[in-house]
Amino acid sequence: MASVYFDHNSTTALKPKVLEAMMPYLTKQHGNPTSQHGYGRSARQAIEQARLQVANAVGAQSNQIVFTASGTEANNFAVTGIASNLDQAQILTSSIEHPCVSNPALAMQRRGWQAKSIVVDSDCNVHTAHLQKLLEAPTDLVSVMLANNETGAIQDIEKITALAREKKVLVHTDAVQALGKINVDFTASGVHAMTISSHKIGGPIGAGALVLNKRVDIQPLLHGGGQEKGLRSGTENIAAIVGFGEACALATENLPHFATHTVSLRDHLEVGLQKLEAVIFGQKAKRLPNTSFFAFSNIDGETLVTALDKVGFAVASGSACSSASSEPSHVLLAMGVDADVARGAIRLSFSTNNTVEQVDEFLTALEKVLQDLRQLTAIAA
Amino acid sequence: MASVYFDHNSTTALKPKVLEAMMPYLTKQHGNPTSQHGYGRSARQAIEQARLQVANAVGAQSNQIVFTASGTEANNFAVTGIASNLDQAQILTSSIEHPCVSNPALAMQRRGWQAKSIVVDSDCNVHTAHLQKLLEAPTDLVSVMLANNETGAIQDIEKITALAREKKVLVHTDAVQALGKINVDFTASGVHAMTISSHKIGGPIGAGALVLNKRVDIQPLLHGGGQEKGLRSGTENIAAIVGFGEACALATENLPHFATHTVSLRDHLEVGLQKLEAVIFGQKAKRLPNTSFFAFSNIDGETLVTALDKVGFAVASGSACSSASSEPSHVLLAMGVDADVARGAIRLSFSTNNTVEQVDEFLTALEKVLQDLRQLTAIAA
Repeated sequence: MASVYFDHNSTTALKPKVLEAMMPYLTKQHGNPTSQHGYGRSARQAIEQARLQVANAVGAQSNQIVFTASGTEANNFAVTGIASNLDQAQILTSSIEHPCVSNPALAMQRRGWQAKSIVVDSDCNVHTAHLQKLLEAPTDLVSVMLANNETGAIQDIEKITALAREKKVLVHTDAVQALGKINVDFTASGVHAMTISSHKIGGPIGAGALVLNKRVDIQPLLHGGGQEKGLRSGTENIAAIVGFGEACALATENLPHFATHTVSLRDHLEVGLQKLEAVIFGQKAKRLPNTSFFAFSNIDGETLVTALDKVGFAVASGSACSSASSEPSHVLLAMGVDADVARGAIRLSFSTNNTVEQVDEFLTALEKVLQDLRQLTAIAA
Repeated sequence: MASVYFDHNSTTALKPKVLEAMMPYLTKQHGNPTSQHGYGRSARQAIEQARLQVANAVGAQSNQIVFTASGTEANNFAVTGIASNLDQAQILTSSIEHPCVSNPALAMQRRGWQAKSIVVDSDCNVHTAHLQKLLEAPTDLVSVMLANNETGAIQDIEKITALAREKKVLVHTDAVQALGKINVDFTASGVHAMTISSHKIGGPIGAGALVLNKRVDIQPLLHGGGQEKGLRSGTENIAAIVGFGEACALATENLPHFATHTVSLRDHLEVGLQKLEAVIFGQKAKRLPNTSFFAFSNIDGETLVTALDKVGFAVASGSACSSASSEPSHVLLAMGVDADVARGAIRLSFSTNNTVEQVDEFLTALEKVLQDLRQLTAIAA
């Protein structure tokens, strides 16, 4: 557990101030927010304060926040819930979406809708001309992520929204990886629905939200007690929601520092990587400041992750959000990267807790690990 | 916040030992369980240990536990996921189910299935002859709760399962209110799927599970990264799952004490209630030891809850799990209770932290509150 943690896009540690805000709701204040008594009312108030904090962090109104238990739930809710209340037409998702967007679209396809993929270019930018062509057919929903979890590529969501709105098509964006790393503005983006998640910004696992334009007709994914104005049933996870609110407030405050600090680490890293002849994916794209995704020729990504773990560095291979799989990253394949090169991919994602000394130590260790792995390969061959 | 808390069926405080077990995962050990590095592997191990603790508490195997974020999610998953993979036939739920069972069935009705209700008698027991009659038509699923959240009535799930199995029909039971209060045995009950929840047994909000017979073909509710063997995607809430595991272990250990302690409080309460001429609902049924649901003539339940809250007692009106609603309890209406009487219903639900002194204080306060409310009514009339 003494490893240097460079996997903050996967999950990042709870901030101490967030835990502090949560503690009362893990100890004394344990009411169910739907209860009429004082314990219940106190829980209700805490949730409404968190709702305002979350709304403020994304340029939305409180009444546009629907709390969920995760980003995955919010993405499933958006895709399934919006399409369900419309005619069986197309659902367009980009080819680099997280599977919790693309798989619900495929599940809707089995129910009679059509799931179609919008291609990206070699820099990981969604091809808006392709979107425009796809939009000629009747479409229920376009879902394009704000920033990609693997390459960090940031999409031109305003342009995508403008194209969709011309055809009166609704737009959802998965902003899970963008929140806390770049400015996120629900209202300015023009999207109808936006997913955000707590544990990617130093909040607890167990809270997420769908930010929703109230004119959108959406079917609940979770039916029951009618919480969240009937849109999302289930006892509210008060402690997690309070933590999410606090994490949102801190992320907004910390955003300028996050951007300058992590981008300096990333640039420093990539200078070193280029000396080691790495291929860096999406480097020409407008990217999240903290993310670098790269590969070395003839080095397997998972082998490299394991070797780096042994020498004290926690990094990700492909997408660490998904289940263990040795398939190459679907994001890289969508970018046209050769499958053999894609199998070599590893990702570093920084937080403000990381330092330039850690990056230097990493580069030194990486050089040694690459030498060792290449020697082994040479012996085996 | 100095109120005496008598609303443990709604939610109950986190046990200190549970919080202690969770703390490492809220501080240092923050890996994503799907990550390959040491942080990830440590999280994975913690989840597998919790899975075993949960399985042990309900007489199941580890590989039968699918973690969810809540009981509501597990109930939605069971009803929607099982029926989705079968022909469009009947879904039978009892008329006293929690809305997170009955509402998913109604949502499936809008997709082409038929949702039908199994009646109960005046003691809150499911009418098995009615079930038998309903089972003459093609049926996908029977869902009957193990114990009712309002009256505490315990259903004869073995008999219900036997009737359904004769027709090769799958059975789900919502055991959320039963766990930790009576013996719960997945294998012995013969059901195919069972819902349980963490925050009703002194675990954190944010974890639940569907216990599932592996031969049941079920469609995921949450699609994405493929966690929980593809059955439930989304980053696992490690801290909540670890807490759920610990709470399960403690609940099993504590079960005999829970039963004897809370039933003595309940019996003591009901002797006092009868002196005050309360109507006690489901009193003739086999009930959970800790639950009492009752009403007084010409006294509104919500008014009584508010008045009792003011004098320091937190109790529930109707079902506190559901959203604020002034409709009379659907459980009481299903039992044939007159709507005017049902509007008077309030519920006390005890834990082992409650004492006989608290019950005595409550009875004294209740008598005074009833007098005051009746005087007000008399003045108004």
